[in-house]
Order: sequence, then structure tokens, then C-alpha cells
Amino acid sequence: MTRNLIFIGILTLLFAAGIWQDGTVAQDTKIPALSELNEDEKNTEKVSLGARTWIIPTPVWVIGSYDKEEKPNVMTSSWVGISCSKPASLMTCLREATYTHGNIIERKAFTVNIASESYAPYAAYIGRVSGRDVNKFETTGLTPVKSALVDAPYIKEFPLVIECKLTQTVELGLHTMFIGEIMDIKADRSILSEEGAPDIEKLKPFVFTPGSSKFYGIGKLIGNVSDLAKEAEKK
Amino acid sequence: MTRNLIFIGILTLLFAAGIWQDGTVAQDTKIPALSELNEDEKNTEKVSLGARTWIIPTPVWVIGSYDKEEKPNVMTSSWVGISCSKPASLMTCLREATYTHGNIIERKAFTVNIASESYAPYAAYIGRVSGRDVNKFETTGLTPVKSALVDAPYIKEFPLVIECKLTQTVELGLHTMFIGEIMDIKADRSILSEEGAPDIEKLKPFVFTPGSSKFYGIGKLIGNVSDLAKEAEKK
Repeated sequence: MTRNLIFIGILTLLFAAGIWQDGTVAQDTKIPALSELNEDEKNTEKVSLGARTWIIPTPVWVIGSYDKEEKPNVMTSSWVGISCSKPASLMTCLREATYTHGNIIERKAFTVNIASESYAPYAAYIGRVSGRDVNKFETTGLTPVKSALVDAPYIKEFPLVIECKLTQTVELGLHTMFIGEIMDIKADRSILSEEGAPDIEKLKPFVFTPGSSKFYGIGKLIGNVSDLAKEAEKK
Repeated sequence: MTRNLIFIGILTLLFAAGIWQDGTVAQDTKIPALSELNEDEKNTEKVSLGARTWIIPTPVWVIGSYDKEEKPNVMTSSWVGISCSKPASLMTCLREATYTHGNIIERKAFTVNIASESYAPYAAYIGRVSGRDVNKFETTGLTPVKSALVDAPYIKEFPLVIECKLTQTVELGLHTMFIGEIMDIKADRSILSEEGAPDIEKLKPFVFTPGSSKFYGIGKLIGNVSDLAKEAEKK
């Protein structure tokens, strides 16, 4: 009798575990109602950190440009973002002290190059030495490709590249914002989804954490935005 | 004799596997020399995708603002980025059609609210309905807190909030860029590192993928930027 109960108990547990792992049920249990948050999450008393740029995470974009003598240069920038859908444009903010700053003003063009995780050490290195001192394409072995659309080089080995024409320059203080119109996005076939858009699970990009200066990979799919929105409405 | 050879072979394989899993050796093998990339990675022939904003990933920021009648509103924005270190500032780009666009022009202030994964459905919902039609704080149950520093509300339940004063407005086309000076960053204690900076592993933020409209979590630590840069130099 006792043995039978234990047996039934184990079966029930296995069954429950099965349901738990089932997508649909997990979906329903994923959103905590606000009252169901754990103690840590409920403690919303805020600590003031001051006027800082510790906002995590930020993208990691490698900016390509030519100098006056046609020397290709790259630098890593995380003060960046998409800025407009029509015309498609983006922005990168650079200190005047950087070599790229002068290049973009001179050439009125730049590229954005997105690395896969396997290139993270290159993106880190490119962000820490100046094109004034070294030719970073020579020191890394990466290959500059002259864009046919804009006056800037892109990195052949990086799987996603964006070619931009400078359209506006905004002075902000220590940083200057360069707004570029996107003339084309080019991608390796290997990182495209069946629908033909860049697939984050194939690209394997990574993000930067201001404040602690680390690179982190991308994790699991949380969901489609339209599906997630419906879940919140149910609450 | 043959048996002995097989036995030695197996021992060798086991030994090799052990070395492979050792941290130090794995570290050295982590960065592929460019010649060591796999066939997919070596195929760098690019496909043109056109002038699009399919750049992945982008941050997910929930922008807080008041309307003329003091009604608090929130909207989700991924055309965003840090823009300057001194003065610390950031930017968010919004279509004129959004309710928040008018609010920011009226109040000259906004907040940025960063959600943990558990709030992803809220961030998705907030991005898909308009503050013209509903009070999103009422429909979600989230709590607006009036900032003491700027004329905008932040979300009590979100663990990282940034209070901004509008400093510049840049017209870009479909989107208007609002540049805000960061007056303060506030964080829940539970998401801070021992050094007092926001810790991405505790915050658990997520990113948006333009092109496929999905949210993804953050994955594993790839490394400190300074350490990674040294690895690239070794190559």
C-alpha cells in the first residue's frame, strides 16, 4: 500500500514536471502579478547614484572611417543608437580627441560594424588603442573593404555592416553626435533568418555594460513583443 | 596488441578532453585567429538588405512623462542611446504621433525606466497602446512616482530609473530626437554590485530586435573589456 502511494506520488511529480516544462503553461506563469514579486523585487526604495551614464546594457558598434590619407580606421563606440525610421538613420557620439571624430568630419561618412561573440576580443582591442598610433587593420589582421556607397571602409569579417552618410552633427559637450543616414545594411547569409532579417541567435552579438566595462552575450528568447503585450493585458 | 592501442587511444582522447575543458587552455583557444574560423564564418560575401533599421540588438527604455493635465504616461522606445559623458546625457527618438512627443515638448523633461525580465510583458504592452486612449499606469497597476528633480514621473516598480531634463530637440524626419541631461540615476539596492554600480546579472534587463520584434534576455559574461583587449593583442 505504502509502496503504491510512493509510486503514484512519483508519477504525479513527473507529470507535474512535464507540465511545468510545457511552453504554454510556463508562458502563463511567467508574468508575476505585481503582488506576486519576491521580497527583493518588492523593495523599490531607490538609491541615488548621481548624474552618470550607468545605463545597462548598450550596443557595441565598431565605427569604420578613412583619414585624409585614405588610411582605414576603426573604433568601438557604445554611445550609439538608431535615430529615425524614415529616412533610416542612426547616431554615434564620439569625443573630439578620437581619430575617428576628425575622419568623419573630413569624409562625411562612416560605417557601423557589428561583431559576433567570437570577435569580442577584437572589438575590445579596437576600442582601446588609437588610430593615430597604429593601423588597427594591420595589427588585428581584419580586412578593410571600401564601400561602394559611402566614403568609408567596412570590416569584411564582421557579419553585419551598415553604410552611412553623415547628415547632421550635434555638439553635446565632451561628445559630438554624428547622425548618419543608412544607405544600406549588408549581412553575411549565415546570420539571416528564413524571412531574410538578421537573426540574433545566428549573429550572436554582445552588449557593453557602462559602469563595469564588460561584454555580455545575448541570452534566451523572452518572446515576441505582440504576444508579450497580450499577456500583460490578461493581468 | 590492437586492444592495447585502442585503450591508449581512448586514454589520450580523455586526456585531451580534460585539457580542452580547462579554463586556461579554453581561454587561449577562445579567440579564433581569422584563419581558424569555421566555413560559415569565413563566408563573408555580403547580402544587401537595403536602407533599413535592422540593427540588432537595441536597448528597451520605457519613457515616462506628464501631459498638460498632469496625467502620467509611459511609452517604450528602442531608438535610444547614451549621447554624452559630460554633461551626462542620453537621447530618445519618438514619432510626432506619439502622446509622449507632445508631453516632452510641453514639460521639457522625461524619465527612462529599465525593466527586469519579469516586467517584459509590461514593457511590451506599454509600447503598443497609446496614452491618448488609456492611462497605462491604471491598466497595468504600475505606480507613478513624481520625480523631485524633473517634471516627469518614473515607475516605482522598475529597478533602474534615470531622470532627464530636455536640453536639445533635433528633427530627423519621421522621428524627433529628444536629448536629455541626466540629473540622477536611481536604482533598487537589489540590483547593485558591491562597487555600487548597476549589475546586469542582478538587473536582468533585456534587448529588442528590430526586424523580428522580439525581446531577448542577457546571456553569459564574455569578459572584461580590458582583459579581452589583451587577448586580441596576443594574436
